[in-house]
Amino acid sequence: MPQQPEQLRALVEDYLEELSLLPELGTLSEPMLYSLGGKRVRPVLCLATGDAVGARVEDLLPAAAAVELVHSFSLVHDDLPSMDDDAERRGQPSVWARYGEAAALLAGDALLTEAFRLALLYPTPAVARELSVATLEMIGGQWRELDGDGTLEEIHSLKTGGLFRASIGCALAAMEMPPSEQVPWRSFAGELGMLFQVVDDILDGDGFVVDLGEDGARRLADGAAERAQARLAEIDADTAVLAEIVAGLQSRTA
Amino acid sequence: MPQQPEQLRALVEDYLEELSLLPELGTLSEPMLYSLGGKRVRPVLCLATGDAVGARVEDLLPAAAAVELVHSFSLVHDDLPSMDDDAERRGQPSVWARYGEAAALLAGDALLTEAFRLALLYPTPAVARELSVATLEMIGGQWRELDGDGTLEEIHSLKTGGLFRASIGCALAAMEMPPSEQVPWRSFAGELGMLFQVVDDILDGDGFVVDLGEDGARRLADGAAERAQARLAEIDADTAVLAEIVAGLQSRTA
Repeated sequence: MPQQPEQLRALVEDYLEELSLLPELGTLSEPMLYSLGGKRVRPVLCLATGDAVGARVEDLLPAAAAVELVHSFSLVHDDLPSMDDDAERRGQPSVWARYGEAAALLAGDALLTEAFRLALLYPTPAVARELSVATLEMIGGQWRELDGDGTLEEIHSLKTGGLFRASIGCALAAMEMPPSEQVPWRSFAGELGMLFQVVDDILDGDGFVVDLGEDGARRLADGAAERAQARLAEIDADTAVLAEIVAGLQSRTA
Repeated sequence: MPQQPEQLRALVEDYLEELSLLPELGTLSEPMLYSLGGKRVRPVLCLATGDAVGARVEDLLPAAAAVELVHSFSLVHDDLPSMDDDAERRGQPSVWARYGEAAALLAGDALLTEAFRLALLYPTPAVARELSVATLEMIGGQWRELDGDGTLEEIHSLKTGGLFRASIGCALAAMEMPPSEQVPWRSFAGELGMLFQVVDDILDGDGFVVDLGEDGARRLADGAAERAQARLAEIDADTAVLAEIVAGLQSRTA
């Protein structure tokens, strides 16, 4: 029987807590581990995807953690003074505010590289390939947003969607699912990334809310959630927990 | 017959010139490609290693370019104001001085990720694994230097040696050479990293020159070069071009 999101989240927390970083990083591990807060949305999705198709969730932990480390890397670098200049993150000093800019720069670089080391624990290079494309999309989206190049939807799809798609895609890659069987999963993942970002905009009152108003953004989110559920229903797997995660993302208030 | 270093360098230049970055990066490709200057010491070593054992050098170009991209990523981030604050690199404005700090930050992140994408073109994940460990060693060395944690030799071995070892190691990994056969190659690679860094210190008048004086540093470099040549001589391969590269690194004046 598939595990509930809370159980999966606990597995992620335990794995991240015992994460063995390369010893050569020395005390740089402090700002790296300090950065690893958050709701674990992406790694839980990764594990739930594997669980739905009967994989051992333990086998998916390195892939799930790799996605989370890429997410953390992006936040550590985004908060830097030359980017968003955020001295706070989740009610605590951001990494640069606490450890200095040089430490935050190097900790972000090391988080990204450790993410690849984790993704490379698998015998197939497909997990790390998935991660490399998603990370480049994310960086490209970040750059386009700064540079004012692209529509809001394009930028969101790159900046946020890529890593959501990779949360699902890395699970499929780790399980070595044949590409033809991955198609409906990838449609699902695309809707999910959109859903997450639009709800983010509703909670923050920016992005799509500025373009479409709050009601318009809400309709967009509900449409994405509906399509995500429809895609899930078409998949021949035990997707009840994933359906619950979609509903949770649709109605979340934080 | 093995190709000469100049021929190998031309192959690297051509490959880098036609490098196809992920299109989603958009105009971020400009600062990325701008950063790719330099002498190509590491990718030439990678190709020369493959050539010495009879691989097709063309097959090693993605691995060689991956190592060069990691090197470039490290320079782009090192030059940032929060790190070494260098507005010049190779007589030109450094990336942040020319394109701004945010562009330099993201260009560095994207160079590192593109390096993995290149290393992941191989059917084996071993090339990317080699690269991930070397990159983490490099970042660890960088951090320890800032933090004053470790001896000069330890810091050099991490900061510079790791990527030199990977120049050789990625070639062996791409060729899927059995680990037992890699042992003498890896001893050679270790000496080479040391040689390169000590000669750098002699040319810059810092590091080992401060600790040992110029004569002492020169003796250290000559010792490393001698051991590198001895290791090469023990290897059953056509290592004449590599021996020439070692001699060139030992006597270089820039």
